[in-house]
Parts: sequence; structure tokens; C-alpha cells
Amino acid sequence: MSRFWSSLTHDLKPYVPGEQPRIADLVKLNTNENPLGPSPRALEAIRGEAADTLRLYPDPQASALRATLATYHRVQPEQVFVGNGSDEVLAHAFAALLKHDAPLLFPDITYSFYPVYCRLFGIAYETVPLGEAMQIRIADYRRPAGAIIVPNPNAPTGIALSRREIAALLEQHPDVPVVIDEAYVDFGAETAIPLVASHRNLLVVQTMSKSRALAGLRIGYAIGDADLIEALTRVKDSFNSYPLGRPAQAGAIASLEDEAWFQQSRARVIEGRERLTRGLKSAGFEVLPSLANFVFARHPAHEGAALAAALRQHAVIVRHFTAPRISDYLRITVGTDEQTNRLLSALSRILG
Amino acid sequence: MSRFWSSLTHDLKPYVPGEQPRIADLVKLNTNENPLGPSPRALEAIRGEAADTLRLYPDPQASALRATLATYHRVQPEQVFVGNGSDEVLAHAFAALLKHDAPLLFPDITYSFYPVYCRLFGIAYETVPLGEAMQIRIADYRRPAGAIIVPNPNAPTGIALSRREIAALLEQHPDVPVVIDEAYVDFGAETAIPLVASHRNLLVVQTMSKSRALAGLRIGYAIGDADLIEALTRVKDSFNSYPLGRPAQAGAIASLEDEAWFQQSRARVIEGRERLTRGLKSAGFEVLPSLANFVFARHPAHEGAALAAALRQHAVIVRHFTAPRISDYLRITVGTDEQTNRLLSALSRILG
Repeated sequence: MSRFWSSLTHDLKPYVPGEQPRIADLVKLNTNENPLGPSPRALEAIRGEAADTLRLYPDPQASALRATLATYHRVQPEQVFVGNGSDEVLAHAFAALLKHDAPLLFPDITYSFYPVYCRLFGIAYETVPLGEAMQIRIADYRRPAGAIIVPNPNAPTGIALSRREIAALLEQHPDVPVVIDEAYVDFGAETAIPLVASHRNLLVVQTMSKSRALAGLRIGYAIGDADLIEALTRVKDSFNSYPLGRPAQAGAIASLEDEAWFQQSRARVIEGRERLTRGLKSAGFEVLPSLANFVFARHPAHEGAALAAALRQHAVIVRHFTAPRISDYLRITVGTDEQTNRLLSALSRILG
Repeated sequence: MSRFWSSLTHDLKPYVPGEQPRIADLVKLNTNENPLGPSPRALEAIRGEAADTLRLYPDPQASALRATLATYHRVQPEQVFVGNGSDEVLAHAFAALLKHDAPLLFPDITYSFYPVYCRLFGIAYETVPLGEAMQIRIADYRRPAGAIIVPNPNAPTGIALSRREIAALLEQHPDVPVVIDEAYVDFGAETAIPLVASHRNLLVVQTMSKSRALAGLRIGYAIGDADLIEALTRVKDSFNSYPLGRPAQAGAIASLEDEAWFQQSRARVIEGRERLTRGLKSAGFEVLPSLANFVFARHPAHEGAALAAALRQHAVIVRHFTAPRISDYLRITVGTDEQTNRLLSALSRILG
């Protein structure tokens, strides 16, 4: 407690990201990073920006990147917003669009940053419990709401909604902003972007950290009606005019231009997920049906915290959450086949 | 006006950054960029990060960069905060440290982002008029305050306070946070960092965009008591865990390790400023005594807006502000000698 802090600062409960340990020969399956790596074209574009021109500010509107995203996703540039990772895009969305008199709704088990943003921006919220099978039930959102945010696939369960279900949610609540957080959508789920044309209240948020393997570069974006994008831009331009540096803008554009790499990356993660799921099931785990680049799994005979600690002894790091309903589970990133093998062999030693 | 926007969004008046036009052969003297360019070592470090490891998240705490900054500035790593440009660092400082019951004080003529942050975070503020010579008068800050922020040198005047004057300000207000925004300090003014050891209420904010010519990479930082830094970290970790990508962290470290380049860059800007000042005075301008990498100048016979527009016709872009007291002035970046020559020759044609 400090007399120099604002009262807001005292009240915050910051998000705790998965750790980035520096341990040699570690099997790092805790932060859903992509095993294949970024497009070589993106790397080349970043190298090209390591030049004298770095003395100049980047384009504050990131016009070229927004135009490229617009073409890629078949929308207009005015329907695209970019930010420093999808976490920053989400932060601006919470401030610009999700704060209203009626409460914001999101699932009780979901991305744990959402309640952190609510505290930062003073947003009243209500959580909607997942069903028995840990699935989001759209019918349960039929209640008064100032706004709604739902990840699709949900995190950390990995379970996805169909585009038809998202459309049903939008039609339940045509008068309030609905954000679909699609950080993991490229690994088999359906994006809601085609619904933007017919739903002025829809904002879709995506990231280049997972399917484009650019977590180290910090690029996220949102697609929605120009009116929603203008709200994000107003908040962004009241916070930081230049969130994306020149290497980030160039790398992102080049990544979008390498569709073959992107498709290869997606396919490899999807294959790896099936392999990981089979291996975990053979080892006695229950595995939720994931369409993300991770699986959420529990062992009927072993506590999640104990398993995570034991894996760490074998230099395998997975993510464990202590929240109610999910403390038995481990969230395990889909890595390379070799990483999956090392995980499974560590588990077989731990489980005896 | 949109029903989907939060009420905050409606109330914002976003900051407008200097434009980044894409005109060939333009003399761009509007956003205080460094003519020399970044250290070749920084560029090499950025190229080194264009690698497979970009698939991994960066260190959210930027520990290596903070340690390097701590060594460089002779403080402890716990006394260092880093962000996505000094604008982001300032944004977090406004939320974390500058919002109190009593009003925030800052000069009436200063960085125009300050009132924008106040509106974003709902901070009450009072402006303190500059003196007749456009200087900040510390004695005028002897009034009730919840917090204080002062740029040193001030922008857009370029006029600096001495470290002794900053110390006097700190001693006037030992019980409230005082932020010294030193974006331009490396071009001849005295940094307040040595005062951090004896003043728990002091936060010094610096940037790598100007003296280190890394505007395109987005790196800012703050130095202060660990208690103030903790407040910034709490807000940052409630907003975006990973504001600095891997290329940015590596480039910043390498830049700090190239002291010779930094000193050369500073010296060249200081020399260029003297040359620009002499040229403008010869052309009939009044030039405020600047210790920044820009000068603030007015011509007794010509309006600022008209001069800026005329210069633009000659492909020379400078910054003009419409605010009272400064609408007659132009803010002109210290460029290369060739850019200064082109500016002066355009002025001589305009002024006849």
C-alpha cells in the first residue's frame, strides 16, 4: 500500500501469464506457442525493417497492414483494427465497447484476463456457468446484458461453438456489442467473420501469436462494423498512437501473404492434437474435445497440481489453473511430435 | 454516436500524432525523428531476432532489458519499468500514479497528450501558465496538487529546467507523485534520474525514439522508486502482459551497449540545432532557447499556419499547433544539414 498509488492501482488483481522459463532442453507446453515457427517470409520482412528507417515512427494507423487484413478476410479496411497482441485489442474493446450499465456476460470458465480487464475499467460483469460437459450453452445467455464476450474455441477447454450458434447468440442480443475472441480459431473451428456483414454488433478478435507463430512480435486485430472499429480507434488514440512498430507491421503483412505456410502450420497442429489426445487417453486421461492448439485433460486418479509439479521434475511444463471446476485439469499445448513423446513418456513414468 | 459505444468512448478527444506522409523526397521535420539513425548494433540484434524463436512469447517482465537499463542509469532493476514507447509508459503512469482527489498539475503549454490521458482516465487537472518567456516557473506550482507532470525539456517549447529546479519542485511536493517526462533530455538538458535515490515520489520517463533513433521500434521506460514501478507494473499486467516483442527488447539492449553511437548522435543533433537556430534567426525568426532535438520559432511578420502551409508546398513538413499562445509558432525538428538547408532555402523563397 502506497500513498502515491491511485486508488484503482490498489484494487487491481493483475493477470499472471504462463511463465517463460530459461531452462535448457525444456519441453515447454504451457503457453500455446506454435511448434512449426513463423513463415520464412515474415522473418525476411522483419530483417528488412532492421534499417535506417527505424529512426522514423511507424504508420500510426497501420494502413498497409489493415488493408492486407481486409483483403485477406474480405472486409473493408475501416472494418479492421490492429493492436499490440490480441490482449491489447481486447483491453481497448473492454474500455470502448463492453462497459455499459447492464452487466457484461462471459463464461465462468474462460480466459482469465476478462475479469482483470473488468476490474481495470470498472465494468460490472456476470459469469454464465458452462454446462456439464464444460461446453458454452448459448441458451443460457438469454438474460439482460450490457455486452457479451465469448472465446471461440473457449479457453482453457478448447471446446468450440459452431458459426450457427454464434449467429444465434448475436440474434438473441442485437442491441449489445458481442465480442468473439478467436485466438485459437484457426485450428479447426469456424470463424464468425462472415457474420460481420450482417451483424453490426459483432466484433471478432484474432491474433498472430498462435496459428501464425508470431507470439514474439505482438500482433492482434479485430474485425467488425466500422462503427465498432471507430470506438476502438478512439480509445487507442487516447492511449498510445503507435502500438505496432515497423518490424511488427512488416512481419504481419508478410505472414498474411504466405498462405501455404499458414495452411501447413494449421494442419500440423491439428494432426499433433489428435496424436496428443490419443496418447493422453491411452494414459488414462479424460480429454475434452479441443479445436484449439492445446488440450484440456484430467486424470481420474491424480490431482492436476500434483501432476503439473511431477511433470516439471521431468522438465515438462504445462499450465495448471487453481480455479474451481478446473483445478483437476492440465492445459497442454500441442507441440512437436518429439515434445509430445517426451510428455507422454514423462507421464508414463509418473503414473507408473 | 453509437449505441454500442461505452459512454467513455463518446467523451474522448483523441491525440492527433504528427503525420507520416509517404511523399518522395520529402523534408520531414514534423515528428522529431533523429537524422543519424539507430546504432548498427541495434539493427544487428533485431535481425538476430528474426528467427524461429519468434514463435515464443517474449519475456513479459523484459528482465534483461530492465537489467541493462538499471546498469546504464545506475539504479536497481526494480526501479525500472519498460513499455511500448514512452506514450504507453505515460498512459500507465496517468492511471497508476496521477489520479488522485486533488488535481494533477501540468503546464498550459506542453505535450498535448496529457489532457487526452486525463479524459481517458477521468483525472481532474489544472494547467499552470508558462511565464512570459514561455518558461516553466517552479514557484507557480506551489499550490494544492494530487500529482504533477512536467516535461523536461518542455514540449513544444524545447526550454529546459535545471536539475536544481526539478529538485526544488520535488521538495515543494514531497507527498505527491511527480513525473518528469524526459523524452528530449539527451540533447543537452540534465536528467533527474540522480534525484530518484533521494526522492521516493519521483518518476522519470524516457524514450528510445529520439536520442536512440528507434521511433520505429517502440520503446519507452520509467525510472523511480520500486514502489512507483510496482504501481505501473500492476496496471500493465491488468492491460497487456507482453507489450514489448522480442525484436524490441533485443534492439533496445544493443542500443544501450553502443555508447559511442549514442554520444555521436547527441553531438550531431546539438550541432545541427545550433546551425538551424542561426539560420532561422538570420531569416528573421524568434527562436526559443531549445535543449531538445527541435526548435520552436515564430516570424514576427508571418502567421504560423500560413508558413507551415507554404513550407508544405515546398515539400517541407513542420509541426504547427492551433492552441492559444502558440499558434504563431512552428515546431521544427533538427534534421540533417541537408534538410536544414532545404528548409532555410524554402523559407527564403517564401519570405522573399
